Amino acid sequence: MNNNAIGVFDSGLGGLTCLKELNKLIPNENIIYFGDTARIPYGTRSRETIIEYANQDIAFVKKHNVKLIIAACGTVSSVLGSGKISDGDIPFTGVLLPAAQTACSITKNGKIGVIGTAATIKSGSYGKAIRGIRPDISVIGNSCPLFVPLVENGFTERNNPVTKLVVEQYLAPIKKEGVDTLILGCTHYPIIRDVIADYMGENVTIISSGEEVAKYAYNLLMRKEMLSDRKENGKNIYYTSDSVELFEENAHAFLGDSINGEVHKVGIDELISAEI
Amino acid sequence: MNNNAIGVFDSGLGGLTCLKELNKLIPNENIIYFGDTARIPYGTRSRETIIEYANQDIAFVKKHNVKLIIAACGTVSSVLGSGKISDGDIPFTGVLLPAAQTACSITKNGKIGVIGTAATIKSGSYGKAIRGIRPDISVIGNSCPLFVPLVENGFTERNNPVTKLVVEQYLAPIKKEGVDTLILGCTHYPIIRDVIADYMGENVTIISSGEEVAKYAYNLLMRKEMLSDRKENGKNIYYTSDSVELFEENAHAFLGDSINGEVHKVGIDELISAEI
Repeated sequence: MNNNAIGVFDSGLGGLTCLKELNKLIPNENIIYFGDTARIPYGTRSRETIIEYANQDIAFVKKHNVKLIIAACGTVSSVLGSGKISDGDIPFTGVLLPAAQTACSITKNGKIGVIGTAATIKSGSYGKAIRGIRPDISVIGNSCPLFVPLVENGFTERNNPVTKLVVEQYLAPIKKEGVDTLILGCTHYPIIRDVIADYMGENVTIISSGEEVAKYAYNLLMRKEMLSDRKENGKNIYYTSDSVELFEENAHAFLGDSINGEVHKVGIDELISAEI
Repeated sequence: MNNNAIGVFDSGLGGLTCLKELNKLIPNENIIYFGDTARIPYGTRSRETIIEYANQDIAFVKKHNVKLIIAACGTVSSVLGSGKISDGDIPFTGVLLPAAQTACSITKNGKIGVIGTAATIKSGSYGKAIRGIRPDISVIGNSCPLFVPLVENGFTERNNPVTKLVVEQYLAPIKKEGVDTLILGCTHYPIIRDVIADYMGENVTIISSGEEVAKYAYNLLMRKEMLSDRKENGKNIYYTSDSVELFEENAHAFLGDSINGEVHKVGIDELISAEI
């Protein structure tokens, strides 16, 4: 039994899809969420910059006495790889392994599609993780660098002509290969899940990496007997590197609900010094 | 006569459209260019974060003993306003006033369109600047938050269906008003100038804020007798906050040529300490 908070971080607001699922599965847990909104997006940056930012994010979250750190960011998860464990005893997970495991258990025809940011796809980490679980599976990946800006700028309705056109362009090579399972390897993508699902067709199962990591975290804490025994609901506390107003304005689209918790600003200088 | 370099900065690579024009107009000048590629885009961030980043950028450029600082970034120019002068004696200009002046001198029907990032349009600074020059002019603005990601992700061909659709969506309200002049208030936009021009039609004059600020800087230095008397070509030196490789990979699209000069990486911590 452990009543410390779960630490969740993302380059921005996409990780809220994970927080939402955690709130549903284990509502009595406290959650510390950090969204690096002053430096989003991560997925188009170089590997070295992504690692630098990720280490600062992890160091910041660790300062809050958390019992588990979740990188609810597809880019960070892929670039750090599933082997990355933070220093000390705090368990760490990215979205990569949970999503890969679920996809492997679901696919019937052994063909899995993966979409993510440029950095995620370039890292090849989904292919490695999936082949590590089931070497017989084919993985077809494609980067979708315009999806994050589309989501962030409100091009999210099911019939949005721009989003439909971009979805078609990015997903055609994956659909052509006849995958029966598609991993949304970036936690922003569930916001345009309908558009993606409409294009892929009803025979393709879509896996949200944010939701999968929440389930994975729940099982991990249960197995390690680290779930909270709190009787009442836990608290969400949010930190954001850009303004609190901007965070509050945009969070609704990801939570499908109002923010249930305090939001605090954390400066970039504080993030940098957290790492040191 | 002054042989110090001209300092140019931008959130990323868009400011290279200004550098390119400076190289053409005054090839014997040295130029220090800083692109904050580790934190691009600026235009979707809060006013407070944009001001913080801009001040760090200015402080960094100032360290290089420059004779003039150019904010070749539409967002920074608009948020700081045309009144912003850096401390000390170094002249400073953004793209706002040069573009506004040119537009005012070109328009015949007194209707000017302005497109830029969300922060640029929200600031209302173009309207203020233009009405300050000619109060009789109508200004019709619209933010185009998807243009920067489109440019950065290669959706730049004249017939790109996604870009054409987005251009139509963002520019329809401006075209409807019958403007005869359109300011590209973000230094990324010249890369999709053809798509914009095709939609607006041949009777609309398009003004690139990056080119205008270069001409303005040239006139300013001439008037103040601060042009270089160097006989040979000057040098470009580039600084970038993300990796040198990423900068070199992407600069070509903006320069229409290879980078003619050294590229150095500058860390975010160095930017923050430059300001202090």
